[in-house]
Amino acid sequence: MLSKRHPQLNKHGELNHLLSIEGLPKAVLEHILDTASTFVSVSDREVKKVPLLRGKSVFNLFFENSTRTRTTFEIAAKRLSADVLNLDIARSSTAKGETLLDTVANLSAMHADMFVVRHSESGAPYLIAQHCAPHVHVVNAGDGRHSHPTQGLLDMYTIRHYKRDFSQLSVAIVGDIVHSRVARSDIHALSTLGVPDIRAVGPKTLVPGDLREMGVRVCHDMDEGIRGCDVVIMLRLQNERMSGALLPSSGEYFQHYGLTEERLRLAKPDVIVMHPGPINRGVEIDSTVADGPHSVILPQVSFGIAVRMAVMAILAGNEA
Amino acid sequence: MLSKRHPQLNKHGELNHLLSIEGLPKAVLEHILDTASTFVSVSDREVKKVPLLRGKSVFNLFFENSTRTRTTFEIAAKRLSADVLNLDIARSSTAKGETLLDTVANLSAMHADMFVVRHSESGAPYLIAQHCAPHVHVVNAGDGRHSHPTQGLLDMYTIRHYKRDFSQLSVAIVGDIVHSRVARSDIHALSTLGVPDIRAVGPKTLVPGDLREMGVRVCHDMDEGIRGCDVVIMLRLQNERMSGALLPSSGEYFQHYGLTEERLRLAKPDVIVMHPGPINRGVEIDSTVADGPHSVILPQVSFGIAVRMAVMAILAGNEA
Amino acid sequence: MLSKRHPQLNKHGELNHLLSIEGLPKAVLEHILDTASTFVSVSDREVKKVPLLRGKSVFNLFFENSTRTRTTFEIAAKRLSADVLNLDIARSSTAKGETLLDTVANLSAMHADMFVVRHSESGAPYLIAQHCAPHVHVVNAGDGRHSHPTQGLLDMYTIRHYKRDFSQLSVAIVGDIVHSRVARSDIHALSTLGVPDIRAVGPKTLVPGDLREMGVRVCHDMDEGIRGCDVVIMLRLQNERMSGALLPSSGEYFQHYGLTEERLRLAKPDVIVMHPGPINRGVEIDSTVADGPHSVILPQVSFGIAVRMAVMAILAGNEA
Repeated sequence: MLSKRHPQLNKHGELNHLLSIEGLPKAVLEHILDTASTFVSVSDREVKKVPLLRGKSVFNLFFENSTRTRTTFEIAAKRLSADVLNLDIARSSTAKGETLLDTVANLSAMHADMFVVRHSESGAPYLIAQHCAPHVHVVNAGDGRHSHPTQGLLDMYTIRHYKRDFSQLSVAIVGDIVHSRVARSDIHALSTLGVPDIRAVGPKTLVPGDLREMGVRVCHDMDEGIRGCDVVIMLRLQNERMSGALLPSSGEYFQHYGLTEERLRLAKPDVIVMHPGPINRGVEIDSTVADGPHSVILPQVSFGIAVRMAVMAILAGNEA
Repeated sequence: MLSKRHPQLNKHGELNHLLSIEGLPKAVLEHILDTASTFVSVSDREVKKVPLLRGKSVFNLFFENSTRTRTTFEIAAKRLSADVLNLDIARSSTAKGETLLDTVANLSAMHADMFVVRHSESGAPYLIAQHCAPHVHVVNAGDGRHSHPTQGLLDMYTIRHYKRDFSQLSVAIVGDIVHSRVARSDIHALSTLGVPDIRAVGPKTLVPGDLREMGVRVCHDMDEGIRGCDVVIMLRLQNERMSGALLPSSGEYFQHYGLTEERLRLAKPDVIVMHPGPINRGVEIDSTVADGPHSVILPQVSFGIAVRMAVMAILAGNEA
Repeated sequence: MLSKRHPQLNKHGELNHLLSIEGLPKAVLEHILDTASTFVSVSDREVKKVPLLRGKSVFNLFFENSTRTRTTFEIAAKRLSADVLNLDIARSSTAKGETLLDTVANLSAMHADMFVVRHSESGAPYLIAQHCAPHVHVVNAGDGRHSHPTQGLLDMYTIRHYKRDFSQLSVAIVGDIVHSRVARSDIHALSTLGVPDIRAVGPKTLVPGDLREMGVRVCHDMDEGIRGCDVVIMLRLQNERMSGALLPSSGEYFQHYGLTEERLRLAKPDVIVMHPGPINRGVEIDSTVADGPHSVILPQVSFGIAVRMAVMAILAGNEA
């Protein structure tokens, strides 16, 4: 990482930026989840909007395109009554040779209140958080292979919603872990929240061995990996991030690591199946499972709005 | 069409989605036109905004690009105080191989209240309406060659505004009818509203013969087609939708079917000339006619805002 | 220019469109600057928003892409509570062969209140102002090499903020003046506001000789050009606007015209350094100067929001 000092927390130990779940204390994670639960009535549209960010400017800085993630942040910000500006940053001044830090300094000078940053380079949101004006809060919306903290948080929210207590759970994360910022964020969060049994399941080329040092059980056999689990988090096979040699054929991959109804019977009877989306039907997950009774993939999307509202509302309420 | 059952109306016979004018009862059409007339003061900016859709999320899902149509829906939604999200859907998850229905399920889970859908495939908005969450209302903003119901409705609004009564009218639709979703929507609407004399005018390659079964008079001679008309609806020569063999040269087309001042004298003295835009000056219409005293092309644009406000307001007030 | 008659002022001599600083009386310029000063509390976010343009529709018509400029107008409009529509005009009807004037007529018919226009052709905003509906106010956000009046105004605001009085100042504009719409706008504004010593500094290929007729001192020697100055306005080396023969190599250019700390010592001790951005570090300006104590480049960005709010608020309050 770019900085030894973790710039996420202010001097009161409150969230100032959300850059990574790594290093966030349990109390901060729980505060976000508790706050998110108060926004479910808004994300469910019983309450239409709340005026918590009225008049604030949220800038979506997507250096890497992601319509889905941008949309969830835009919805969350608008339901908090913020003004949202989408910057088509790929076509902007950076294309004229301006440095990232000059772009950030300029956008700070426009008196943004929050930057939601997506970048293909790991660490870019850290760099931005270190150099933007003190009144700007930065939210990492995914940086390279490093981190995707709001996805990690919405996964935790979903697990807590269905399982209540983290302290007895077995959670399997299955698939392309080495390329997944979601997996990293999930592992840090599960670990901090006290999940005793975290498993990383996938082929040797896609599961980094050093996960063992984080207390994660590494399984290269799918059946063994999901046996007795309470939660299965399937990852997207990130074809677009893989180079040729590592890329398994879809058919072969599905045979060994695809989640089928049959395999799912190895897990606990009340297992929930999660996936960050977009799903590849028949590649990492069978349609009968994706659309089946154990799937909570669509509720994840809904909870994601509430969680992003919570993060933004907490940041806006905290001083630098 | 994809479904025998027409999914536009709810169990009370009220509009739940607006997918096509085909199959809408006269009372529903008239209700939309009556409602639109109450919004003209807003579209004319005497009244700036109304709070009817305050806090609602309208998602513009434009699978096919159309800045003009998207803009009119965005204006209509914002004047109803809705939050509007423009999804650059061509660059989004569908590009990552996600199916249309998975995209729709995800966007439903973000608790959209309305989808405004433009798609190059006929029937796509039907498919979406059948599979989206029950709280979402779908508006077809143009699908393939099939339907463009809000354009049809604004055409009806314009005709009623200038002619008051549909029951005595002669209406000629001129040009590339076979490729035109506007023509189809207009014919269904004119028919339902009781226009006794509907004419389809154009070369054999561009006017489908089966229109006769819908009670439409087919004319391949322009002079005959517009003689005595109250309303002439000119269509855009859709070069971008035609394959080579069908494509007449512009000069030749204009000679036979272009609307000139001289030809217009064959129509009634108080004839109105309409066009869905963008116009091709000198291809299907002469500039002296487009900018002349009979042209109501720009009022059509203004009425289009009021009509789209009416559709959205009606849908938002109806249950699934 | 396209019109002899200057269409910027209404019959009361008030601003109806902002197309160019050329021809604006001193009283109008000062009124804009005075109004901008009342909005600094908003652009600085002490006050979040003001309702002056509540319910008004501002259309951003960017025929030429400029994320940065579009963003500043969008922020300014939203802080005035306007609804902002960004039209991706390059992909729109103009791409279908519609003429500029037909596009403008259509957008007028949608009852826009304001067009913010960026165009690669000099004079396009004039053409639009002459042909749009009377209720629409046009703001030029940069046209070809001709004019960029809000940049000129924010430069004047910045100078007044730091120097208070224009009547004793020496101002040097340095660099690629021939391709710069900013330089033209600044020269007109400085001249109207009574600056006695305006200098245009740069190589012969980049400084037009006819500036002398406007009372500007032309210097091809950088040291001579900035000696004793109160204000140095550096211009961006517009590589993207230059053809091969005119283009100096970056290294050579910097050697002769780059602003270094050493050169800046030739100016007054309290000199301020300005730049419209985005800066090319090490091409036209040294990083130590850009980030140094004399630089007011980032305050320019902040003042730009207040100035654009002022222009929009003034236009919206004036009749055609």
